[in-house]
Amino acid sequence: MNKSDKRSNQSSKSFTLAGLKFATCCSRTKYENRDDLLLIVLDPGSHICACFTTSTMPSAPVIWSKKNVRKKQNANQKLVLLVNAGIANAFTGKQGLIACENKVLALSSLFQCDINNIFLSSTGVIGEQLPYHNIIKHFDFLRNELSSSGLEAASNAILTTDLKPKTYTKKFKIDNKIFSISAIAKGSGMIMPNMATMLAFIFTDFAIDKKTLSLMTKKGVQESFNRISVDGDTSTSDSVFVATTNKKCLELTKDRKEKALDIFYNELKGAMIDLAKKIVMDGEGATKFIAVRVKNAKDINRARRICFSIANSILVKTAIAGEDANWGRLIMAIGKTQIKLEITKIKIYLQNFLLCKNGQGVEVVDELLLSKALKKRNIDILVDLAEGDEEFIVWTSDLTEEYIKINADYRS
Amino acid sequence: MNKSDKRSNQSSKSFTLAGLKFATCCSRTKYENRDDLLLIVLDPGSHICACFTTSTMPSAPVIWSKKNVRKKQNANQKLVLLVNAGIANAFTGKQGLIACENKVLALSSLFQCDINNIFLSSTGVIGEQLPYHNIIKHFDFLRNELSSSGLEAASNAILTTDLKPKTYTKKFKIDNKIFSISAIAKGSGMIMPNMATMLAFIFTDFAIDKKTLSLMTKKGVQESFNRISVDGDTSTSDSVFVATTNKKCLELTKDRKEKALDIFYNELKGAMIDLAKKIVMDGEGATKFIAVRVKNAKDINRARRICFSIANSILVKTAIAGEDANWGRLIMAIGKTQIKLEITKIKIYLQNFLLCKNGQGVEVVDELLLSKALKKRNIDILVDLAEGDEEFIVWTSDLTEEYIKINADYRS
Repeated sequence: MNKSDKRSNQSSKSFTLAGLKFATCCSRTKYENRDDLLLIVLDPGSHICACFTTSTMPSAPVIWSKKNVRKKQNANQKLVLLVNAGIANAFTGKQGLIACENKVLALSSLFQCDINNIFLSSTGVIGEQLPYHNIIKHFDFLRNELSSSGLEAASNAILTTDLKPKTYTKKFKIDNKIFSISAIAKGSGMIMPNMATMLAFIFTDFAIDKKTLSLMTKKGVQESFNRISVDGDTSTSDSVFVATTNKKCLELTKDRKEKALDIFYNELKGAMIDLAKKIVMDGEGATKFIAVRVKNAKDINRARRICFSIANSILVKTAIAGEDANWGRLIMAIGKTQIKLEITKIKIYLQNFLLCKNGQGVEVVDELLLSKALKKRNIDILVDLAEGDEEFIVWTSDLTEEYIKINADYRS
Repeated sequence: MNKSDKRSNQSSKSFTLAGLKFATCCSRTKYENRDDLLLIVLDPGSHICACFTTSTMPSAPVIWSKKNVRKKQNANQKLVLLVNAGIANAFTGKQGLIACENKVLALSSLFQCDINNIFLSSTGVIGEQLPYHNIIKHFDFLRNELSSSGLEAASNAILTTDLKPKTYTKKFKIDNKIFSISAIAKGSGMIMPNMATMLAFIFTDFAIDKKTLSLMTKKGVQESFNRISVDGDTSTSDSVFVATTNKKCLELTKDRKEKALDIFYNELKGAMIDLAKKIVMDGEGATKFIAVRVKNAKDINRARRICFSIANSILVKTAIAGEDANWGRLIMAIGKTQIKLEITKIKIYLQNFLLCKNGQGVEVVDELLLSKALKKRNIDILVDLAEGDEEFIVWTSDLTEEYIKINADYRS
């Protein structure tokens, strides 16, 4: 058992996970004074799963990794993940694919593993070619730097416009055995195409077969990263990787195994939700963290569509930024989904204040109290459709002048 | 023949159209020092058609007018249109419908016409009850003020956050007979739900049956108002009314009549496109007028979806505001539609500069020239899909800090 497993509230700086190592360096492909290249190596016997952007213009590393993750990895060899920040290698044509190929070949020869065991991820400017020679020449150095306590350095090396690094570490018990999850993410918006893709890398030592982990990864992403939105835009590079080193096994009966898997899934989902919220909280120019919840819907799709219509409405976002209880904009956002609703049944709450019911506004008893509640950083919007049992939640941020400043002049 | 018909380049101030009269006043329901109530009266024998918001939360006047326009109007009586600015009478429940009913009854008794001949339109804050008594008490005054040269005053009385009134007047010839179109519109965004709905009222003296005019209205709206977007939000109150006084008839053979109808439709469409563009140009905080065109698409739906994805992308809008040739954001916006495309066939042009083809960026020969072109007020984005013959165009504006300022603190 790894030494660090004995402590449970340690910082991400010293958190380690058996069979997982990181190394970072400054490749000078885009940034000058910070690390922007991250190498992650997992011991033989590890499994890796992933979800990718739904964009029909995926970046070259997404094309590579998406194809690769479906293939069988060689279990007797290491798994290698390479991430660079600054250039997304997206919409770079054949040259972009050649860049990937060369990185993969160099890594496969360095770590003596099949190319199926190599995964790539990039974030940054779209359309710029990646000077891959500059990256490959650092591989030897990175291999020598590999360390199991590199989580914090790793979380910094993948950032672009993010204000803060995003890490998650947790130990959890199943059947008196202690397991670990450690993870890093980047993103300063659900997606900004330019230097602000969403990436997440989540690791565990909990032994689990690839198929089950893959199903859990897809389900977890649905319940976390697919419930956030900063600006409604979708990157060409979004990637979520989940890997296990399989270092810690549980020998359980079938019944207890299912329960153990449930516990693990909840831990995995917890990590994903935590990182998803951290991305929203670090949204460009954001001053508010907004939870939009639609409950008592006929089906989850109606709830989801209404949640996103509210969360992506520029006018809702600006009203929240202005700390204005402008519930008319919520009505607008619900109405524009074109979902047929029984208007008189709907109740809308802002910060737990009931603002409308019976198809019209409600006199708020204490306007001052509501106004005070809107000054908080965390904002809760709740729409009760009173038509069924389903609910959905979306996390988003407000839209401020700062966002415009950041994005009106980014590329240059 | 009306005197004004002899002049062709007269200002909207003195433009008149036979059978059409306006009157305005300040009702003090919301604004203090400006007219906010508009009465429009058309001579007996007129036809009226309309298109309304697709929102499932339509305002009370939309509910009234939508139902009414489908009914048969009494041809021996006047048609009456009442518009108020400041309060939208949306999401106001039963009380909102009662407000409409009372206004309709008062107008129907004043002008001695069926209630089917009365149409209503409101724009302004959602959720506030309309103090309709304050409105009704001005009806007598308005009737006495009715004047055929009130177009400009009318265009001012319907504004909310608009910076400029929007009018359109034109005379056109068919078979050596002169016809007129005059119109007013308001809107400072495709839609802003709060005080910035899109309304348009278009009038002509060209005699045409209601059914044909109705078809033309729907088709024209598709090709104009449904091709603009400022913020992608949809109001609860959007309304476009098209009415003819039927004062000027053409006696033509069937063949020549069809040609005449074509000419008239093009004139009607021209008026709609002009007003639609004026609304975009007056978009809140807008500094740029952006035309997004997708050509050579397999079908018009693909072209339309890509156009709107680009036009509604916050990141595209901020890049244009920043005069930044950030074509990566166009790639992002195309990709997020999830429409499958042959990436290597796509060409993207900004201000007629080819920025990418063959699935990657193109070296721009003269960056300085491109940079200069981006400083212009009119911005052209062209995406050539090279997969078919269909095309679509959407007009939009950029997104600036000023927009956030306007909308972050609006209701109060």
